[in-house]
Amino acid sequence: MAQKPNWILICTASVIFLIIGTKLFNRSKHVYNLFFTYPFLFIKGILIGRYGINNNKDAESPEKAKMSAMVMEELSASNIGEYLKYLSSVPNLAGTPQDLEVASWVRDRFIKGGLDEAHLVPYKVLLSYPDKNNPNQVSLLDSNGKVNFTTSGRQTPLFSSEEFSPLVQPNFNAYSANGTVEGDLVYANYGRKQDFEYLRSIGIDIRGRIVIARYGAIFRGNIVKSAEDGGALGVILFSDPKDFAPEGRSSVYPNTTRLPGMAVQSGSVLLGYGDPLTPLYPALEGAYRLPETEAPLPKIPVQPIGYDEAEILLRSMSIDNPAPEDWQGGLNTTYFLGSKSTQRKWTVRLQVRMTQKLATAYNTIGILYGREEPDRYVLVGNHMDAWTLGGIDPASGTSVLIEMARTFGHTKEKSNWRPRRTLMFCGWGAEEYGMIGSYEWAEEHAKVLIQRAVAYINVDSAMEGNYTLKSQTVPSLYSVIREAAKMVPNPNPAEVEAGRRTVFDTWLAANPDPKDPTQPRIGNLGSGSDYTVFSHVLGVPSIDVYYDYQEKAGSYPLYHTLYETYHAVANLMDPGFKYHLAVARLMAELTLSLGESVILPFDVPSYASFLEQDLAKIESRYKDVAITNGATFEHFRKAVAHFRNATEYFTNNIIPRLDLTNPLAVRKINDQLMQLERGFVDPHGLPGRPEFNHIVFAPSSVDKYSSDTFAGLVDLFKTVGNKTEAEQPGTWRQIKQHLSAISFLIGAAADSLREGF
Amino acid sequence: MAQKPNWILICTASVIFLIIGTKLFNRSKHVYNLFFTYPFLFIKGILIGRYGINNNKDAESPEKAKMSAMVMEELSASNIGEYLKYLSSVPNLAGTPQDLEVASWVRDRFIKGGLDEAHLVPYKVLLSYPDKNNPNQVSLLDSNGKVNFTTSGRQTPLFSSEEFSPLVQPNFNAYSANGTVEGDLVYANYGRKQDFEYLRSIGIDIRGRIVIARYGAIFRGNIVKSAEDGGALGVILFSDPKDFAPEGRSSVYPNTTRLPGMAVQSGSVLLGYGDPLTPLYPALEGAYRLPETEAPLPKIPVQPIGYDEAEILLRSMSIDNPAPEDWQGGLNTTYFLGSKSTQRKWTVRLQVRMTQKLATAYNTIGILYGREEPDRYVLVGNHMDAWTLGGIDPASGTSVLIEMARTFGHTKEKSNWRPRRTLMFCGWGAEEYGMIGSYEWAEEHAKVLIQRAVAYINVDSAMEGNYTLKSQTVPSLYSVIREAAKMVPNPNPAEVEAGRRTVFDTWLAANPDPKDPTQPRIGNLGSGSDYTVFSHVLGVPSIDVYYDYQEKAGSYPLYHTLYETYHAVANLMDPGFKYHLAVARLMAELTLSLGESVILPFDVPSYASFLEQDLAKIESRYKDVAITNGATFEHFRKAVAHFRNATEYFTNNIIPRLDLTNPLAVRKINDQLMQLERGFVDPHGLPGRPEFNHIVFAPSSVDKYSSDTFAGLVDLFKTVGNKTEAEQPGTWRQIKQHLSAISFLIGAAADSLREGF
Repeated sequence: MAQKPNWILICTASVIFLIIGTKLFNRSKHVYNLFFTYPFLFIKGILIGRYGINNNKDAESPEKAKMSAMVMEELSASNIGEYLKYLSSVPNLAGTPQDLEVASWVRDRFIKGGLDEAHLVPYKVLLSYPDKNNPNQVSLLDSNGKVNFTTSGRQTPLFSSEEFSPLVQPNFNAYSANGTVEGDLVYANYGRKQDFEYLRSIGIDIRGRIVIARYGAIFRGNIVKSAEDGGALGVILFSDPKDFAPEGRSSVYPNTTRLPGMAVQSGSVLLGYGDPLTPLYPALEGAYRLPETEAPLPKIPVQPIGYDEAEILLRSMSIDNPAPEDWQGGLNTTYFLGSKSTQRKWTVRLQVRMTQKLATAYNTIGILYGREEPDRYVLVGNHMDAWTLGGIDPASGTSVLIEMARTFGHTKEKSNWRPRRTLMFCGWGAEEYGMIGSYEWAEEHAKVLIQRAVAYINVDSAMEGNYTLKSQTVPSLYSVIREAAKMVPNPNPAEVEAGRRTVFDTWLAANPDPKDPTQPRIGNLGSGSDYTVFSHVLGVPSIDVYYDYQEKAGSYPLYHTLYETYHAVANLMDPGFKYHLAVARLMAELTLSLGESVILPFDVPSYASFLEQDLAKIESRYKDVAITNGATFEHFRKAVAHFRNATEYFTNNIIPRLDLTNPLAVRKINDQLMQLERGFVDPHGLPGRPEFNHIVFAPSSVDKYSSDTFAGLVDLFKTVGNKTEAEQPGTWRQIKQHLSAISFLIGAAADSLREGF
Repeated sequence: MAQKPNWILICTASVIFLIIGTKLFNRSKHVYNLFFTYPFLFIKGILIGRYGINNNKDAESPEKAKMSAMVMEELSASNIGEYLKYLSSVPNLAGTPQDLEVASWVRDRFIKGGLDEAHLVPYKVLLSYPDKNNPNQVSLLDSNGKVNFTTSGRQTPLFSSEEFSPLVQPNFNAYSANGTVEGDLVYANYGRKQDFEYLRSIGIDIRGRIVIARYGAIFRGNIVKSAEDGGALGVILFSDPKDFAPEGRSSVYPNTTRLPGMAVQSGSVLLGYGDPLTPLYPALEGAYRLPETEAPLPKIPVQPIGYDEAEILLRSMSIDNPAPEDWQGGLNTTYFLGSKSTQRKWTVRLQVRMTQKLATAYNTIGILYGREEPDRYVLVGNHMDAWTLGGIDPASGTSVLIEMARTFGHTKEKSNWRPRRTLMFCGWGAEEYGMIGSYEWAEEHAKVLIQRAVAYINVDSAMEGNYTLKSQTVPSLYSVIREAAKMVPNPNPAEVEAGRRTVFDTWLAANPDPKDPTQPRIGNLGSGSDYTVFSHVLGVPSIDVYYDYQEKAGSYPLYHTLYETYHAVANLMDPGFKYHLAVARLMAELTLSLGESVILPFDVPSYASFLEQDLAKIESRYKDVAITNGATFEHFRKAVAHFRNATEYFTNNIIPRLDLTNPLAVRKINDQLMQLERGFVDPHGLPGRPEFNHIVFAPSSVDKYSSDTFAGLVDLFKTVGNKTEAEQPGTWRQIKQHLSAISFLIGAAADSLREGF
């Protein structure tokens, strides 16, 4: 073993050296570099050469630890609270004057916060609005056609003055078709594929009828799509008290965070991504726009209602077919499925009046240019538009974003420091309608982003509750988020008392990874927020973080309702904004890791492990049927093994030999790390889904919110089922083609890590 | 004006400084850089800052001029001659053992020449072979069905011993369909679209008949496609003596370079690109392969014959319809078109027996890693496979390629020098069949090449004659090729005597640019050789060079025949290999410009000029019809204007302010220059041609060999003709969509040159 050097001496000397250097030369980077950074790096290089020390910590910029402490300290919970108060004070639906006001205000905050520049970026896109004066309605008609009951179409203001704003829209689902339909009801539980299949299996046909279904399990647009495909006339959606007000009607907003009976979850039912009229291309001036009839919009009307009103409708239903046990909900009635043949005792009339129109959505992009690699970008983003007041979604995230921008801007101004790479703070427009602002922007700048974007860090609702951190990301960022979570003090006093000092500790305790219980569980990216285009189309390693509300999946009760107010956040959900602060600190730490480390902290062998595990799962499920039909996993398996070897060799042999004093050699390694994720992008798209390109991660084809791994392949296997090649040659051919594409892309990604060509 | 510095003093000091540094420190790059390069660059930076001097010359590496002189001197005509002798000694058809032998030999030359590494890269692809023992035949049958004449199916050896090789194949067109067809002849001139239209216009139907057409105007595959689309049963191709033996039968090979009467031009009739069974993906082990029936292969048989035999067939034709004046050829007979209704006096029988099979094509890739930017590649390539002996096509180019590799390798070994960037020397396999080796390799390494390839320099036949240099490239490389041509001494003594000392001088005199007669004309890249995939799919700036045979377009007479021998090259076409040497020098100079300049020598405002001129042309032709049908050039025009401004600003404001001492700042600028060409790549392909992605340059859709600008758009305008939007809504929609895509991509390319994000 080599003799241990006198570390304390070397480090102290280096730090003194650097501090003197900074003081003396802070106005002249080159002179400074010449006298201080270069010799420093040179000495470091000798140390590395001699002692072979070069783990991620060593490859971190000498500034990283110092800046991390400084930034952690600077982030302010009270600032976050102030931003949130402003942001949630007025409804700012995408495309409205209030939305522009908020986007401009965010831009001003970015500038005042010290960023180098900040701009509004407008796109003219198809948005969808209800008729302010004629709310959409659901009515109950008796057998004589007489209207017995009609929904109010609006939520009742309950507490905060801003709930009374005349700008609050009546209840609607964006992009619902217009029209009036009449039919009897069929209850479809959560509207999942299996729910509709169950109805079909017991002989209940939805054709010519109106589907009523509960929110909370899958993306609402997929419920509507299944109903439409099954021939339903329309869809009514409601939030069941079992999921949204489990303690009953007396324990709801404004006293608790539970859902009152007339509260309605707004939301888009668009199944596409980005502006519906300009798929794959940005909605710039002069862009070709599809005829609206060809956009991926529902062809049937859909309307959300509160559970008080849902109860009235459910009570009117035929009592022939009681719903199964687990379809029963929290309303004071037995839930029935509907009759097997259409009945005319009670008919429901659904009247929807929407305007689909071109409107301008604004992104706000703020930039802090990097010191050494201004053309490498770490992006941090959240959307700015809200369905109504958006106290949580998105103001909690936007407030964190603004405070991060201010903190980095301030640190730059105070200490003449800049991060190694450029930081971009992105406020997205019209996310709620279908990630429109982020999609159009990413489509516009696709090539530059593919070249230069190191990572995208997404927050949406920064906190939905105080249960635990949750995160979805790609395997190469697992260690980055875990390490960052260890740096953030636990915002929950009870947890601290229980000995869990950091965000990481609670995360691990609450949500251990079943595959490795020594680590907290990390999810895969679906399509719930603005990371979609970055991850699944461009192949930019992306990460989504938030503090979650409960153990099981599902949104916090007030999600997308009128009652996402400052009161709900400041008094009920996060008094003192401690959880907000924790998320801000976590994101700042992530940003510093990605923006400041000399070598990008991407753990590429983790990706190999992930692929190995996922392949094993897919193989165990589909290998036999594949072999029987002439398809093989052999090349897929070889490619993953090759990928394993390449990532190990890169990590254990190439990186340690890197000459850290050579900026272009460091850039080469970082480009390889950055581009590895792009390797999984098939420019020709997934089978039948040309809008998605990432072969490993894609939104589920039956639930836009959730993620499937190797979705292209698994979807095909599901489609083909037990059919043989002779019975379904087309699908088997697609399976073979996609297996071939997957094997090629994984192998090519591995090759991109080679030392030479 | 600023005071002039004492240049001589500064330069002399710098050079002495550098030389001392090189001597003292040539074993330790870092120390050397620290003491010499950095201060040198620093001083240079001050000079630039003070005097604003930073044209391309200044941004060249200090090594460039020295290395250029050294390389020019080292390149050897006699080496080229020796390689050519070996390469043309045995037929090396793709996929045969001789082909592998040549590829291995090239690899060995690369290694011995001093490259860092060289590898064979195999791909299993669909190739096509005649039946060695049963040549394809064309027979003439009288009205009783009696065979009066049958073609020999082979070329007669005339002079060199290698012409007698038992490995010489009978005459064939690769990928011809198999089968025997019978019918009377229709003469279709050069088989261009307008030729078939003319036949149709005068009432001559090709359905159920055999087309006979002349080689020489367009790609033979397009002739076959038109015949097939028109319902013909088969195609016979011949080389007319008017084009290929203008001095008559007495003045032909082996006495001159003109075509003897039984000589046959082989060639592929594949209309696709790359391996026909693996479009868009590389033909790796385990790749999915299309059923052969779905590959873009002709459905009718086609066979090439010599003009002696063509004369017999033409003389048998019905004398009803004499061909027009300009359809008449050099044979001793009047050329007739064929009769208006099928006649049975003489019938032609076409018997084709081909084997389409998977065979292995080999690329040879040799690498000389770069000194400072090993992950930036300048590629130089030529194919290695030949139809027969391939003395010109490809041995002239391969010999030049090998000599270049040896020269750079030798220079590295002799002077411990490496180019700034990595040089890759690429010998391609199976180019003749359809650019298969280069396509599969570029498909395999697409992402790495998009990231890292600076440029691709192509040579195919290095010299076809001694008339003048010709070159096709993209506008940003116009100045590079022109400057390089000025550095190369004129190989033609008569031209030197006429005062034209350089290759450039003859080029300018022989072929001035009609748009700017002070410059030689440069063509656009079609799809005649291996640059296709680099330029038109990946967007790597590519350049093709060769010494041409004559003023007008068309191949040298011996092209693709048995008589492309060493004798033809060494004794008839280029005694002393002076023209070969000139092309080698030119390519070496190009390679050094691209591989050694600190700032890439891309002239981006030239691209703006090109787009402006081309847009003006298209607008003047199609503007009115566009406006009438609701399409507009407005955004296209705006995008080009924006592109103009961006390229000017980049060149005049950003580059001169560049800190040349900052390697990452230089890299940023170079990446922007390199990526500009990628900006023209639409990942979604051209309308109806998903295999092509470059919006500005693509092969013509009616002639694979030639180039169309904005082919996607122009093809649509041609398709729609005078039809209104009401009459052809689909095409007008495509026009609007593509105009939108073009405008977006040009604008985005311009934006990629911005200083900040």
